[in-house]
Amino acid sequence: MRAEPRVVIIGAGFGGLYAARALRDAPVHVTVLDRTNHHVFQPLLYQVATATLAPSDIAVPIRWLLRKQKNTEVLMAEVESVDPRARVVSCRDGTRVDYDFLILAAGARHSYFGHAEWESFAPGLKSLEDAIELRRRWLLAFERAERTTNESDRVAELTFVIVGGGPTGVELAGMLPTIARFGLPKDFRHIDTSKARIVLIEAGPRLLPAMPEPLSARAARDLEELGVELRIGERVTNVGDGFVQLDGERIDARTIFWAAGNAVGGLAAAFDAPRDRSGRVRVLDDLSVPGYPEAFIVGDQAVLRSRGADVPAVAPAAMQSGRTAARNIVHTVRGEGRERFRYRNKGDLATIGRYKAVGVVAGRQLSGWLAWWTWLFVHIMYLAGFRNRLSVLLEWGYSFFTYDRGARLITVPPPPVAPASSRTIKPTW
Amino acid sequence: MRAEPRVVIIGAGFGGLYAARALRDAPVHVTVLDRTNHHVFQPLLYQVATATLAPSDIAVPIRWLLRKQKNTEVLMAEVESVDPRARVVSCRDGTRVDYDFLILAAGARHSYFGHAEWESFAPGLKSLEDAIELRRRWLLAFERAERTTNESDRVAELTFVIVGGGPTGVELAGMLPTIARFGLPKDFRHIDTSKARIVLIEAGPRLLPAMPEPLSARAARDLEELGVELRIGERVTNVGDGFVQLDGERIDARTIFWAAGNAVGGLAAAFDAPRDRSGRVRVLDDLSVPGYPEAFIVGDQAVLRSRGADVPAVAPAAMQSGRTAARNIVHTVRGEGRERFRYRNKGDLATIGRYKAVGVVAGRQLSGWLAWWTWLFVHIMYLAGFRNRLSVLLEWGYSFFTYDRGARLITVPPPPVAPASSRTIKPTW
Repeated sequence: MRAEPRVVIIGAGFGGLYAARALRDAPVHVTVLDRTNHHVFQPLLYQVATATLAPSDIAVPIRWLLRKQKNTEVLMAEVESVDPRARVVSCRDGTRVDYDFLILAAGARHSYFGHAEWESFAPGLKSLEDAIELRRRWLLAFERAERTTNESDRVAELTFVIVGGGPTGVELAGMLPTIARFGLPKDFRHIDTSKARIVLIEAGPRLLPAMPEPLSARAARDLEELGVELRIGERVTNVGDGFVQLDGERIDARTIFWAAGNAVGGLAAAFDAPRDRSGRVRVLDDLSVPGYPEAFIVGDQAVLRSRGADVPAVAPAAMQSGRTAARNIVHTVRGEGRERFRYRNKGDLATIGRYKAVGVVAGRQLSGWLAWWTWLFVHIMYLAGFRNRLSVLLEWGYSFFTYDRGARLITVPPPPVAPASSRTIKPTW
Repeated sequence: MRAEPRVVIIGAGFGGLYAARALRDAPVHVTVLDRTNHHVFQPLLYQVATATLAPSDIAVPIRWLLRKQKNTEVLMAEVESVDPRARVVSCRDGTRVDYDFLILAAGARHSYFGHAEWESFAPGLKSLEDAIELRRRWLLAFERAERTTNESDRVAELTFVIVGGGPTGVELAGMLPTIARFGLPKDFRHIDTSKARIVLIEAGPRLLPAMPEPLSARAARDLEELGVELRIGERVTNVGDGFVQLDGERIDARTIFWAAGNAVGGLAAAFDAPRDRSGRVRVLDDLSVPGYPEAFIVGDQAVLRSRGADVPAVAPAAMQSGRTAARNIVHTVRGEGRERFRYRNKGDLATIGRYKAVGVVAGRQLSGWLAWWTWLFVHIMYLAGFRNRLSVLLEWGYSFFTYDRGARLITVPPPPVAPASSRTIKPTW
């Protein structure tokens, strides 16, 4: 016997967290489920991956963020399935939670376009664990390069390939040469880290496809100035241990990062509703699933149109849709009509290295240092409400002036060395 | 053909790092080998384990610390064996390094007194990985307690056992009740975290056996005031998944930390020299191994007497012996006589919770808040030379006044759930 309707929110990324916060004073009981214990400020993940920031600078315990919200409980549990008919969510540890309203905000992973076996050779960057793993990989590559006496091994260790020319790929590709040129050289004796080769591959016709064309061109120019080798319009046909295969060329690289495509996990498939190629559910304009008025999908797992365009899979869209879904639950509980989601595009920025960025803010195209300062201001504003704002500012200020890498830690033990015979995989086609 | 003698240092803890630094201007070529890429400020490891500090606050890349030392190279490699006759060190990845002089500074692990199988249930605290694992374990225990609906499970989840009443055990035991009482309560809905039971077990007759008796008594009183349950003079006879067995009692606890005993790894055994029960080599008073004048052992792997007493296995002794071994190498290269190691005991402090400490400094016994301020001052001074001093001060100041746990992250994915049948182990006696 519950007096109040129970709202279950799956995922505490931007969508889930903003939904939960919007239900603070609502006459409902909220349960937030997340696989991890922390909310991550995703737009800065690449800074953890590049050892500019420490994990705790951009991640905060979810239950700490929601501690003052008396109507909300947080459970750390990995959701395994949703039963939309019985209205129950089941977790891997056996926990089952009934719901009256559901907000699915479980986010996306990278898409390997049907080649799941590429993931172990070319991990993506969606979670804090991913960022720590990426950081570990490129740091270890420099360590191995310093140790080896074999010249072709050394070249492969110092080759870094990033697949995908969206914001994540561009931001990773922009940071690596900066670190290799200015942050590391004095630390090594046997290698010239500034000779590291950084390759950015994008299958489409230009970088940052979501931005206006002139900004793509500017980003390409800025990256080339940093020494990044661009492969635009080239398709990856295979990825294995230590190499990336392009149509006509094989690049030997021990460190490969994947920043291409989005794929949605299986939870969205629980609903008998139309989905797009990457698995996203086409939601109604109140963000509910067609045929399931009590179930909402927000953020990267939903696809819908607003103001004549598809809502992009970006952090502000997740925040806004989380809030709208929450308000629609309150409207329903109160017997009011639901509101229609309208995406408000506040802008879009991507940094390129240490001083530059490109983007559109309030309809104006920005690039260079002005875009970079705007980026800095916007991100510090959005970190408000998290305790880490001061800490991030200090870290940034410190590493900006010193190129020091305080967060350059390899903390996950390297996996056991595999026997040589198992180190290449057979392509499956 | 090398012009200069080659010094190999195994391990970049306090002993190895201070040895390397002391060789800065020496006419030798130095190679520092370490399993990890970072030097850890070990006395503050318990603060990472208790989520007061972030890993990057107390760990710094070794090669960054030694970057200005032109005669020194750093290789991240796990040493597998030492051949004292051929004077060569072999690493797990196949790297082999010849030496003219060796400084073995590989430190100690905890001793499980012949029960290696206890380690997975009761991990120790010697490395950054250990600290992250301990943090993960107690954080997950609170998460599981919040989720469970079974009362006896909940009690076991909220029971924390620490085995070993030395400084590490006392410092861990002092922090946990503080966090449970002041840091966590508002974050949880279904449990009263202040009811967490913290048990500290010490087989000997008193806590902190290296300190004067009145300080042991004071530490015991301070811990009991914090609500810690002391089991002094009680012996652990078995440890398994979810329990600790004492002589006449079984304590059900899902989180068990091991802080008892020291054991030295196999590298020291390469030398045909007398060793003590825990595997430490009895070195000569110039810190060289009897019969091997070119090989020195410093820090926790060596045992020797100085000023009529055994040199303790503490950080200052490691620093001092590292420096003396380095100087003795320089003496030898220059054809001078070697100096005798004399341990200078500067004092010894252990914190108890948030405001208190006990210890001896300059021959004076200190306790309470005065000891705590002394501890703070000493540790901030010793962090000098690392970039993290300001960051640590800020974190401390912040968490001191807010009880906020910014570093409360669970970042290593939990291991796969084992089938029920494999979750208890058979004792081997």
